[in-house]
Order: sequence, then structure tokens, then C-alpha cells
Amino acid sequence: MTPTEKRQRFRAILNGPRCVSPATVFDALSARVAESVGYEVGILSGSVCAATMLAAPDLALHSLTEFSDQLRRITRASNLSVFVDADNGYGNALNVMRTVEELEHAGVSGVAIEDVIMPARFGSESATELVSVDEMAGKLRAAVAARRDPALLVVARSASLKSEKTASAVARAKAYAATGVDALFIVGMKKLEDLDAIRAEVRLPIIMGTMPGVKREELSARGVRFCLQGHPAVAASVKALRDTYAHLYAGGAPEDLKSKIATPEEMSRLLGEDNYRKWRANYLH
Amino acid sequence: MTPTEKRQRFRAILNGPRCVSPATVFDALSARVAESVGYEVGILSGSVCAATMLAAPDLALHSLTEFSDQLRRITRASNLSVFVDADNGYGNALNVMRTVEELEHAGVSGVAIEDVIMPARFGSESATELVSVDEMAGKLRAAVAARRDPALLVVARSASLKSEKTASAVARAKAYAATGVDALFIVGMKKLEDLDAIRAEVRLPIIMGTMPGVKREELSARGVRFCLQGHPAVAASVKALRDTYAHLYAGGAPEDLKSKIATPEEMSRLLGEDNYRKWRANYLH
Amino acid sequence: MTPTEKRQRFRAILNGPRCVSPATVFDALSARVAESVGYEVGILSGSVCAATMLAAPDLALHSLTEFSDQLRRITRASNLSVFVDADNGYGNALNVMRTVEELEHAGVSGVAIEDVIMPARFGSESATELVSVDEMAGKLRAAVAARRDPALLVVARSASLKSEKTASAVARAKAYAATGVDALFIVGMKKLEDLDAIRAEVRLPIIMGTMPGVKREELSARGVRFCLQGHPAVAASVKALRDTYAHLYAGGAPEDLKSKIATPEEMSRLLGEDNYRKWRANYLH
Amino acid sequence: MTPTEKRQRFRAILNGPRCVSPATVFDALSARVAESVGYEVGILSGSVCAATMLAAPDLALHSLTEFSDQLRRITRASNLSVFVDADNGYGNALNVMRTVEELEHAGVSGVAIEDVIMPARFGSESATELVSVDEMAGKLRAAVAARRDPALLVVARSASLKSEKTASAVARAKAYAATGVDALFIVGMKKLEDLDAIRAEVRLPIIMGTMPGVKREELSARGVRFCLQGHPAVAASVKALRDTYAHLYAGGAPEDLKSKIATPEEMSRLLGEDNYRKWRANYLH
Repeated sequence: MTPTEKRQRFRAILNGPRCVSPATVFDALSARVAESVGYEVGILSGSVCAATMLAAPDLALHSLTEFSDQLRRITRASNLSVFVDADNGYGNALNVMRTVEELEHAGVSGVAIEDVIMPARFGSESATELVSVDEMAGKLRAAVAARRDPALLVVARSASLKSEKTASAVARAKAYAATGVDALFIVGMKKLEDLDAIRAEVRLPIIMGTMPGVKREELSARGVRFCLQGHPAVAASVKALRDTYAHLYAGGAPEDLKSKIATPEEMSRLLGEDNYRKWRANYLH
Repeated sequence: MTPTEKRQRFRAILNGPRCVSPATVFDALSARVAESVGYEVGILSGSVCAATMLAAPDLALHSLTEFSDQLRRITRASNLSVFVDADNGYGNALNVMRTVEELEHAGVSGVAIEDVIMPARFGSESATELVSVDEMAGKLRAAVAARRDPALLVVARSASLKSEKTASAVARAKAYAATGVDALFIVGMKKLEDLDAIRAEVRLPIIMGTMPGVKREELSARGVRFCLQGHPAVAASVKALRDTYAHLYAGGAPEDLKSKIATPEEMSRLLGEDNYRKWRANYLH
Repeated sequence: MTPTEKRQRFRAILNGPRCVSPATVFDALSARVAESVGYEVGILSGSVCAATMLAAPDLALHSLTEFSDQLRRITRASNLSVFVDADNGYGNALNVMRTVEELEHAGVSGVAIEDVIMPARFGSESATELVSVDEMAGKLRAAVAARRDPALLVVARSASLKSEKTASAVARAKAYAATGVDALFIVGMKKLEDLDAIRAEVRLPIIMGTMPGVKREELSARGVRFCLQGHPAVAASVKALRDTYAHLYAGGAPEDLKSKIATPEEMSRLLGEDNYRKWRANYLH
Repeated sequence: MTPTEKRQRFRAILNGPRCVSPATVFDALSARVAESVGYEVGILSGSVCAATMLAAPDLALHSLTEFSDQLRRITRASNLSVFVDADNGYGNALNVMRTVEELEHAGVSGVAIEDVIMPARFGSESATELVSVDEMAGKLRAAVAARRDPALLVVARSASLKSEKTASAVARAKAYAATGVDALFIVGMKKLEDLDAIRAEVRLPIIMGTMPGVKREELSARGVRFCLQGHPAVAASVKALRDTYAHLYAGGAPEDLKSKIATPEEMSRLLGEDNYRKWRANYLH
């Protein structure tokens, strides 16, 4: 699939009737695994990028280059449509333009820009401080203008419900929607009423996390088209690694791990060995 | 630990009495997990780099830059001494010099250069064709000369037992040892007799894989100081990812994964959140 | 301009009636300067990449990643159609596939793969040893197959005239043309007779260097559409740098350099300051 | 020279009696040219990095990764001690820590962190807004703490004279000096009186730009040890490129450029061909 085709597929999901969840992916191999299971959409967040590439917490410590290089490895290796949480766009509105340019070049399908002040301000006690509505609107207009492929989705991510009242979150949603973005990504949603309030004013597709006790159908009925489920895949990989390392470190035999690891056949399929065998026969003989 | 201290620790292991096995690591996070279990030495092979960064088989498709950038991420995030299998050194003896320079800069502790022709030759039917003894000796002398930190270990890796007779393997081992390398890495060893034959002529520490039915003590008694166990950690991560993805893709609840994933506390420890909290208090307030 | 449009423009030149020369470019700024003068096509060779990025001679010491990252910077900053000499494609036919993939992603318009053995073989006394016709044909077929954008030009570069007879060069040209490449790049051409001999058998557009005493019209009449003039731009930059450094190092005043440096107005134009001023007004206020 | 030796040399200059100027360098080749002229210290500023790598104005659009990768190419290719203007340290105090870590790893000798708000704030009309003294002091303490090699110089750069009164600039200088930095870098100095006022309170070595009408001796007598002269080298390279391109674009002969370009002998020396010839003889035969 071309980057544009991947974007159109993701666009169709956001504009369709269902609420879909992506697979958290963090390198080429994890993307292949997700694809092999049936996933069509993957996600790489800033937090997962920081965890896997820097072994660091989610504090905006990685660079745009590190993020986009890793994304290129992921989009290169799979046909997943990849949605990314690009934090605050790595600076001001001019940096947002470069961020969109680089991530589009990396082949991603959708880019979310958030209204949180990042990195954390000096002296701040709050975990979630927001830029002004005007500043965020400027960044979003910049993001939309910087897009070259019209199929690329630009998404406004807002953390307003974490630190502001519902009315303020609704006002932000309206202002962001007016900039021409393709979807709203609302974090910190705790009540369906808040979703309803936003939905009453803005008709864009909604991206959000799961809400405890709320069914997928309730979300899709309210325009939620993309529902994030956290990043258990990373934590599952960590547990598997730890168990494997602990077993071997304690002197356990590699053979005893058989039931806990992918088979050589699965690895071979994931790494596309058949393709290489064919290419080798065609071009190296 | 400084890069030199990491190298000295790895050197002490190779010059010590025990036979130690490394943890296969492939990104910053996996290195942290291995370290948390107690490992002091990690390994990144060309095959694991290709699998995780390119989702490709072990065909010399990644570049030296991709390999060394990933290694830097690993050495940056952990105190592991990292041993690398640098394939054939990415070209001829001049390329070997640059390979050693870049990998030393990336902070690795030991670099193995192999005598296999890579990438595969046009028309070749064999999986393992070797360069001449003279060519390999030139590459090894180049590697030794290119080292800036005398603590860095340069290792001669030979696949001679895969495609040549024992006598030839012994002759290669002797010739390679004469170049000033710090250890021999013998692949394809199937009989202790071959190990004894090499050992009779060369006193360098030996690196090799496990041999079915042979105990670690039998290896250490014969000068094997570093014993590779394949890369089950990668396959374990793949299985965990696949199981997680499959569960979620089928509509399973993220909460049901609890027993299969690392806890938030473990993730926090692995990502060094305490350090960042301290730095935040010290420098951001 | 999109990458495809840049490729179509380069394709039109190769399929047109004129013989055009490219500007040697080596970073984003040099590309902007070339464009400001009127150039539509730029070139980055392996030798220029090695000189500017590694300060090393043309010995295949840089990696595909270094080459493609630098090309991306160049194509990002300008509308030049960029033609690249990708040496031997960084390995065997499988590496050629990756090379084409990465360079296409970097936005280049044409990729030349050469039939010289690179890096230099152990023990070789000759500067120019060639791979077999069959091996090179396999690499070219692999390159053509790896192309995703049909507008990207794949070019067969041959050094046969440097080390083989004319008949052999003609035979190679025919075999290479049969693989589906878009043009032939012949190096080491010393006589128009050789060009005529090749031309009699192959109708593809020809790329070559200048020949002393031969006019551009004589070349274009023989199907030469792209004529390289060496890389004086790099040497001119070096001389300007050396003169500037020497002046200042000797205690000369910066002001005395005025006639020898670009004006602030030219620098501002080259760096697109007007665009940023406009974006700043639109999105940061 | 090792990175530490380069740093010690730069440290000796800052702690010595003379006022020295660096060569502006921007890639491996320019560094070699500067070194060939006699320079011991080079500088790469954010503005020059943006100009050459992105063809963009000085607006904090490049990433730390782009900056440090380019610096590594420069320090790898030469024995210059390289001083860098690392803008605001790419974010808050935690980002400063990573910036120091990456630039130290890239082999630079001195890192300046500036007190200007970067990138430009939304709605700001001023070109130079400063962070608070406390915030800057926190960043500088973080920088000092992040240094692993005690020979690395950490420098406080202040633009206070551009937007604040002299007394404020003096107060900032005192506060910054108290954090343990090795030198002060004062920009926007227009009167010797301001320098005297700072000097009366702070004994650290001073880095600054040239002042029209002020002799080097007057500066060195006041503790200025490092005096920047703008970046005419970049503009000289641009003019040489433009003249060369214009000549060739207009149909001029490459031969006519002879007097304006470096000779093949100079290029060969700059690219270290003798070393490679020797290595080739030693290791490839």
C-alpha cells in the first residue's frame, strides 16, 4: 500500500460507523506482528517512543528526528495505517509545520497535536497546563497548511478535561474544529456527559481512550471512531523479556522456553523470508 | 559506568575462569530489563538488529549507521557491557576500520568480525563461503589498529567449521590469533574434539554457542568464556506481542491482560522515573 | 513540486533533445544556491558525499543511511530533480533493492547503479574491477523491480571502458538495457567512436562526463542527454573557505571579506526568510 | 586527539591570557579546511546548522539529533576543539541534561546554553525574551550535573544586554556564575562599560562577539578569551558556489574555474588520501 492509500483507509475508518482500536507498535517487528494478527491501524505515542528508544518516562525528551526515524521503520515494514501522538508538535507553530512535514514523509496516516504545554514549565506544580485557545488554533492551522498529501489526517488533541471545566473543553473543541482539522482527540474523558456536550457542538469524528464501564457501542453511537486502550503490548513484551532473561540468568535451559516463544516458522513469516528467497532466486542467480 | 569500565568488566569475564552467557538486547528498554534481572553483559547480533529494525531476515541488509545508532541507544540506557556481532565489518578492511570506530563510539565493549563473505555472492549455492585467511587477517589487523580505547575487545569470528575441515578451522584460528585479537568466536561447533583441536593451538578465550548435550563446565574447562544461547528473548517478546494483539483484536478487555504484563511499578522502575522526579525537583523548581 | 513531478521533469530531460548538465550539490544550502541560479537538476555522487560528510576519499566508506539522509535534506530544501550515483548499490542485488527503496523515499529522481566491484577487493591491484554481466543484470532487474514510483529513473552505470575493450562495453550496454533501465551512464569514455559503437546497439539516453575537445552538440547528436562536469563546486567552496579561514586566522578583519561573501540579502533569500515571516504572522499571532 | 584532550586544550585557551577566535565549521570537510589553516578551535552555532542542514533561518527548527549527528561528523573528521551554541538546550532543564549528554557524546569541547525563550512565544513581538534568572540557573545546574567528562566546558550564554538594563545583565551574570559554569557568553555587548560592569562582579572567562572599534587587546585585558566573528565562512562558501554554478549554468567551461577552486593536491590532503593509501597497503594486501 502507498502512504496515501494507508491514509485513505484510516480516513474511512474515522468517517465510518464503527469504533476501532489500534495496535500499539514501537518497532518494525512489532508492526509486523500486529499486522499478522489482522490489525489495519497502529499507533505510536510519545510515551511509547520514549520508553522503547530512550528507556525514559513521558517527558518530551526524544527529538522529532528520533520519533520520525522510528516511524519510518514502522511504516516501511508494514501496511498498517499509523496514527501518531506528536505531543505538542515539538515547539511552536513553526515547529508544528516541520513536525507535520517530517511525519508525513515518514509515512504516517494521522498526526495529533496536543494543547498541553510541553516540556513542563519551570516551577509548574500541575501536570497539565494548556496553551491558550488562540495559540493552539494557530498551531492547528499551521499543521493543516503544512500537510502536502490531503489524505493525511491532522488531529487536534486536547487535555482540557484534565484541568478545565466542561464548558471550556467544549469551547476549545469548537475552536479547534474551526481550524480545519479532521478529528478531535479528547483525553481525560471521565463522563459520557462531557462527550455529549462536545458532540452537541462539534461533528468531527472523536478519538479517545476507553472509559471504565462504558461499552464500545455507547462510544460509537456518540461519534467515537477510534478508541485507544493504553499500551499493554509494551508491558506484555517487557514481562516476556523479563521472564526469559530471569530464566536464563538463573541457569535455565533455552530449550525449556519453547512454549513461551514464537516458533521459527512464525519468525520466518514475520520476517518475510519467502520474499527474500524469491528475490534471491530471481536476482542473485 | 564509563564505556571503558564496561569494557574492562567484559575483558575480566573473558580472562576469568567462568563461562558466562549474555542477554540478547535490541533496544533501550530491553537493555534495562536485562539489567534489572542482573545481567552484566548484553549482545546485539546482526540478525536481531535486522529482525527488530527492518523486520528482515539475516541478510546484511541493515547499514552500519542503523546498527551503531541502535547500539548507542542501548549503551546509553544501561550499564550493560555490550558485545556485538558486526557481521563482516560492513565491507573490506577499510570498512572494518570505520566499523570499529563507529561501534567504539557507540559505546560497545566488544566487536566481532566474521570471515564469511557478506552479503551473499551472486550465484552462490552455499550459505557459508569464507574469505581467504590472508584477507581475514588483514581485516583483523585493521580492526585492532582502528581501536582507540585499548579496553575495547576485538574478536575474530569464524564460520570455518560450517564449511571446512577441522584442520582448516585450526589453521584459521591460529592465523587470526596472531593478529592481536582478544578472543575467538567459533560458530558451527558440533564436537568437543574440534574445540580441543583449536584449543591445543590457540590460548585465547573462546566465544561460542551452546552445544547440545554439553555442559557449561565442559566448555569453561576448555577456555570457553562466553556462551551464546540464541535469541529466545526476541521470540518471547514476539509471542507476548502476538498474544496481546490477538486478545485485543478479538475484542478482549485490556483489564484481562493484567497477569501477562509488567506492572506500572516495574515500568516506572525500568524507565528511571525516580531519577527524573529528583532532577525535576532539583532543576525545574 | 512533488517527488513524482521532479522525476517526470528529469525524465523529460533524458527523453528530450538537449544535453543538460547538473549542479553538484552536497547539502540543503548548496541545493538552494544551485536552484537560485536556475538549475533544475542536481547531482550527489558517492565521492562528494564521502568528501563532505566524512572528509574521506571515494572508497565506499559511507553508509546507505548517511547517503539517503543527506539526500533527504537536499530534496526537502529544494525543487531540484536530484540524480544520484549510488555506487554499486551498497552490496548485492538484495541490497540494491533496499538502496532503491531508501533513495526513492529520500525523494531522488534518478539512481545509478554501477558495475564496479565495491569496496575494493583484497589484493586487487586494479582500480576498476567489474562484476560479471549476469550479476550486474540481476542487480539492475532488482533495482527496476524495487521501484515504487514508476517515474523514478533507474540508470545502469558502467565503467567497462576503463578496463575492458569496446566490444565488451557494447555487450554490457546491450545486456543492461535489456533489464528495463531508463538510461545508461558510461564512465571513462575517451573517444566518440566508443560512444557511436554503443549507440549503434542501444537507443537509451546516455549519461556521461565531458570529453576534452568534444562539443556539447556532438554529444547531444549522439543521444547524450546528461553530461557531468566533475565537481568544481565542492573545490570552489573549499577554496573560499580556506581563503576566509586564512584571512581571519592571520588576524584579518571580518569586514574586509565583504566582497567575497554573499550579502545578508542573498542569505535571507536562500534561507526563505520571507516564508517564515509570513508563517509567523499567520500562525504565531 | 581524544575528546578529553580537545576539551583540555579549549579549557586552557579560556583560562589563558589571550583572546582567540574560532573557525565557523559546518561539516566534516569545512572542519578539515579550518584545521589545515592552523585553527585549533571551531564553532557550530544553531543558526549555521539550520542554514546548512535545513536551508532555514535561525528559528530553532532543527532537532537535537540533527545537531549532534552533524557535530559528531565534524569532531570525527578533525582535531578541532569544537564549541557549540546549543540554543536554549532544546527545552527545559531535563532537556538540557539530555542535550549535554548527547553533545558530549558527539565529542564537542564546550556547550553554551542560552537564556532566551526558544522557540519564539505565541504572540511575542520581541525578538529576545528571556527566561527568569531562577529558571536559567536551574538549567545551568542541570547542565553541569549532566556532564560526565569534567573537561567538558559548560557555558552560560546570556542575551540580557539585548533586552534588559546593564544592572540586570550583571545580576544574571552573577547568578549564572554561581551555578558552576566554566565561562560566560555575553551577546549584544555594545559598550566596554557593560563588559567592565560584568567583569567587576564575575571572574569567569568571557566569550563574546567582536565590538566595532574595539581592539582584541582591549577585550583580552577584560577577560575575554574567546571572540566570535560572525559566520563569514558560510557566506563565502555560498558566494563561491553561486559563482561556480552561475558560470557553468551559463555554459562556461569547467576548465576556466581553475584559479577559483582548490587543487586536486589540496583536496587529496584534506581527504587524508595518504592515510588511506597506507591502510590499503597494510590491510588490503
